[in-house]
Amino acid sequence: MKYNPVTQADLAFFRDLLPGRVFAGEEISTDYDHDEMTEYGHFLPEAVLQALTAEEVSAVLKYCNEHLIPVTPRGAGTGLCGGCVAIHGGIVLSTEKMKKVLEVDTRNMTATVEPGVLLMEFPKSLEGTGLFYPPDPGEKTATMGGNAMTNAGGMRAVRYGVTRDYVLGMQVALADGSIMELGGKTVKTSSGYSLIDLMIGSEGTLGFLTRLTVKLVPEPKVNLSLLMPFDDLDACIDAVPRILACGCEPTAVEFMEREVIRCAETYLGKQFPDTSADAYLLVRLDGASQEALQPAMDTLTDLALSLGARDVLLADTDERKESIWNARGAFLEAIKGSTSTMDECDVVVPRDTIAAFVRRMLEIGQAQGILIRCFGHAGDGNLHIYVCRDDLPEDAWKQKVSAVMEQLYAAAREMRGEVSGEHGIGHAKRQFLRESVGDRQMELMRGIKRAFDPNGILNPGKVI
Amino acid sequence: MKYNPVTQADLAFFRDLLPGRVFAGEEISTDYDHDEMTEYGHFLPEAVLQALTAEEVSAVLKYCNEHLIPVTPRGAGTGLCGGCVAIHGGIVLSTEKMKKVLEVDTRNMTATVEPGVLLMEFPKSLEGTGLFYPPDPGEKTATMGGNAMTNAGGMRAVRYGVTRDYVLGMQVALADGSIMELGGKTVKTSSGYSLIDLMIGSEGTLGFLTRLTVKLVPEPKVNLSLLMPFDDLDACIDAVPRILACGCEPTAVEFMEREVIRCAETYLGKQFPDTSADAYLLVRLDGASQEALQPAMDTLTDLALSLGARDVLLADTDERKESIWNARGAFLEAIKGSTSTMDECDVVVPRDTIAAFVRRMLEIGQAQGILIRCFGHAGDGNLHIYVCRDDLPEDAWKQKVSAVMEQLYAAAREMRGEVSGEHGIGHAKRQFLRESVGDRQMELMRGIKRAFDPNGILNPGKVI
Repeated sequence: MKYNPVTQADLAFFRDLLPGRVFAGEEISTDYDHDEMTEYGHFLPEAVLQALTAEEVSAVLKYCNEHLIPVTPRGAGTGLCGGCVAIHGGIVLSTEKMKKVLEVDTRNMTATVEPGVLLMEFPKSLEGTGLFYPPDPGEKTATMGGNAMTNAGGMRAVRYGVTRDYVLGMQVALADGSIMELGGKTVKTSSGYSLIDLMIGSEGTLGFLTRLTVKLVPEPKVNLSLLMPFDDLDACIDAVPRILACGCEPTAVEFMEREVIRCAETYLGKQFPDTSADAYLLVRLDGASQEALQPAMDTLTDLALSLGARDVLLADTDERKESIWNARGAFLEAIKGSTSTMDECDVVVPRDTIAAFVRRMLEIGQAQGILIRCFGHAGDGNLHIYVCRDDLPEDAWKQKVSAVMEQLYAAAREMRGEVSGEHGIGHAKRQFLRESVGDRQMELMRGIKRAFDPNGILNPGKVI
Repeated sequence: MKYNPVTQADLAFFRDLLPGRVFAGEEISTDYDHDEMTEYGHFLPEAVLQALTAEEVSAVLKYCNEHLIPVTPRGAGTGLCGGCVAIHGGIVLSTEKMKKVLEVDTRNMTATVEPGVLLMEFPKSLEGTGLFYPPDPGEKTATMGGNAMTNAGGMRAVRYGVTRDYVLGMQVALADGSIMELGGKTVKTSSGYSLIDLMIGSEGTLGFLTRLTVKLVPEPKVNLSLLMPFDDLDACIDAVPRILACGCEPTAVEFMEREVIRCAETYLGKQFPDTSADAYLLVRLDGASQEALQPAMDTLTDLALSLGARDVLLADTDERKESIWNARGAFLEAIKGSTSTMDECDVVVPRDTIAAFVRRMLEIGQAQGILIRCFGHAGDGNLHIYVCRDDLPEDAWKQKVSAVMEQLYAAAREMRGEVSGEHGIGHAKRQFLRESVGDRQMELMRGIKRAFDPNGILNPGKVI
């Protein structure tokens, strides 16, 4: 695809359309040239536009489609695969000013928001309704629109599912500027191809999200967490499928290693309740009351002890829960802070192969002589793996990280896993997606892309 | 699209490939010329082929793609929109002999089945595992493949979701014969466009399902049902959102009217526990024990009484539960048996508009002087509406039913509902889909269809 550069005439058109919200050249903050993974390069766009309405988005897209200018949609820029970075130049079209919660509909148990609403700000709108929004990705400064367009997962996915399971309706502007309503407030449908499911996780390559309607559920009145220390990594990971199958409906089953916990202690300057063991499972339960949860707690405690846990620590006070979950929430930043730079792998494997995958990962790291940190959503088979550069010189780092990534993705393929559990593909993981799904599926995806965006202006160089 | 007729040479090729499983001309049972809605016409295919393996399906599709012969996929033929009927001639490719449960994987909590496994037979494979498959469409003689390709819903969707929420993996043969693996046993993914979600609900127009992997969940140990009679239809339907929001996590919330219950009593020759009221809600709860469900039962009982229920009848014995749920399961057949012929409407509306929709439906029926029966998944906003012909002469029936359908779908659109909650589009509801989603979305769907099936051989004349 051949694109045109952004000219002064283009900028004049944009400035007329979005007064005070168009930035070019030196006005552009370097924040816009990367996402959270600086390892994947810096690409400054030719212009940054901050839209306020669907009509503005539509007008910008129509113009760019006619003038063959690439449009990179961007929310809060918290992605980990370079999905919101303008690798082919053109404009970044940002949702950062589209931050209104438009409606909370308690009768239908839905909320309708603009795409730039931050995950951390949204719960304020639900206060007093008795409803909550279950998706809980670690990065709370992400936008809800970004979450929908990457199908973000998060801690509570074991019980509640991922973002896809909560998106009921979307308003989307297509590349040609037409505005489309997909779904709405209905909770089920069998009405033609599911364009909304195609849009979810498409990382802005098929359309630009301008409004989002999500499903809410009654808020559980009580939650508590059980921390299970294991001396043995294998026993720890092997306990996961047993915990999932015991009928206790855990909300979250997180896996963590001592070294990662230590990073978080350093990063936060706060102590974790226990660092005596090599590996931990953290299990969260939600329910109507502590009494209602008692049978599940008893079952889980007996089960964990029988499977080799050295103890089961109950976190039922706010203080205890915070000290554990804040540490868990800080893992990514803590690992980032502990090394010079890093690369990331977000594979998801069938749950019964997690233990085998973790062992393989450790072997790969040892064979390459490079430090690998890992934590993740054990209950989903989704691991976040960080390869740390530490003091390695540039050449050795490039060579080693590339070898490690090849081997990690190959191991995931062999175990019938997928490239990304929740972070997406962006531009950084395209090679691994191609290797994972094969040419025929990539061809179908390109066919779909052509149907939605024949000129290829929407987020070029991403996903496919 | 211009298709070729099935020639003797084609039949010879098919007979060589599928010995003893190819039927042509008078060998074809008239069962294959319709689905459960004979109102939508009879279309005898030129040949019926019964496949046994994905390789056979692949070879048949490759041949038909090269020779431009339409292929209509068919499971048990229990659909309600003509989706599995060969309206453009060609062959019906049936999954009725692909009935093996290939694997029940208790560690990953998945099952892998051939597409022709019947919904009523599948639970036998799960006995003793403590796991169950939540989707529960009323038609138990349907195939699991058919359920996936129409995104069937069912009674338990309020708590557990629809078929889409349980499909983890698919093996699909494309129109050109290539065999594709989508998803697998991973429980979440953000790895490119969700081709599996596109395939679900596509009614065999994008690919032919040859293997299905579904998610299982721990079986709730106890279930009970509460039958709530209301004197007033409005109060009955108005109670639904309150019941959904009370935090009791109902598994099912079904709406039924006295007249429909009476039809079922006649059809089954069995008495329903209560026919004193005009309208009923039937609420099912699942849980770990009766004690664990007690708080929810108490809350629901108090709530229902405060909202105008004249009583709340508990069904906690097998006998009582069967008498209620068997009646509910027989509604479709009972209504069918009560009239000469009928047409069906399966709209889904936002849950808070159900009461308004039911009132509008009654007005439409009265204005046209035609009997309309209705029941459905109130908890999902999904109603099954049957327009009954009774003694009407052909001309008056055609005129009235067409007017009623136009008005019902127009009312659903106005309330921001969708054409089908769970039955699909087939060929019978295409006009209403087009009117509902508009030209731009239909154009996108046709673009997707072209990417998957450029010659248009797969189930032509359906959905789009």
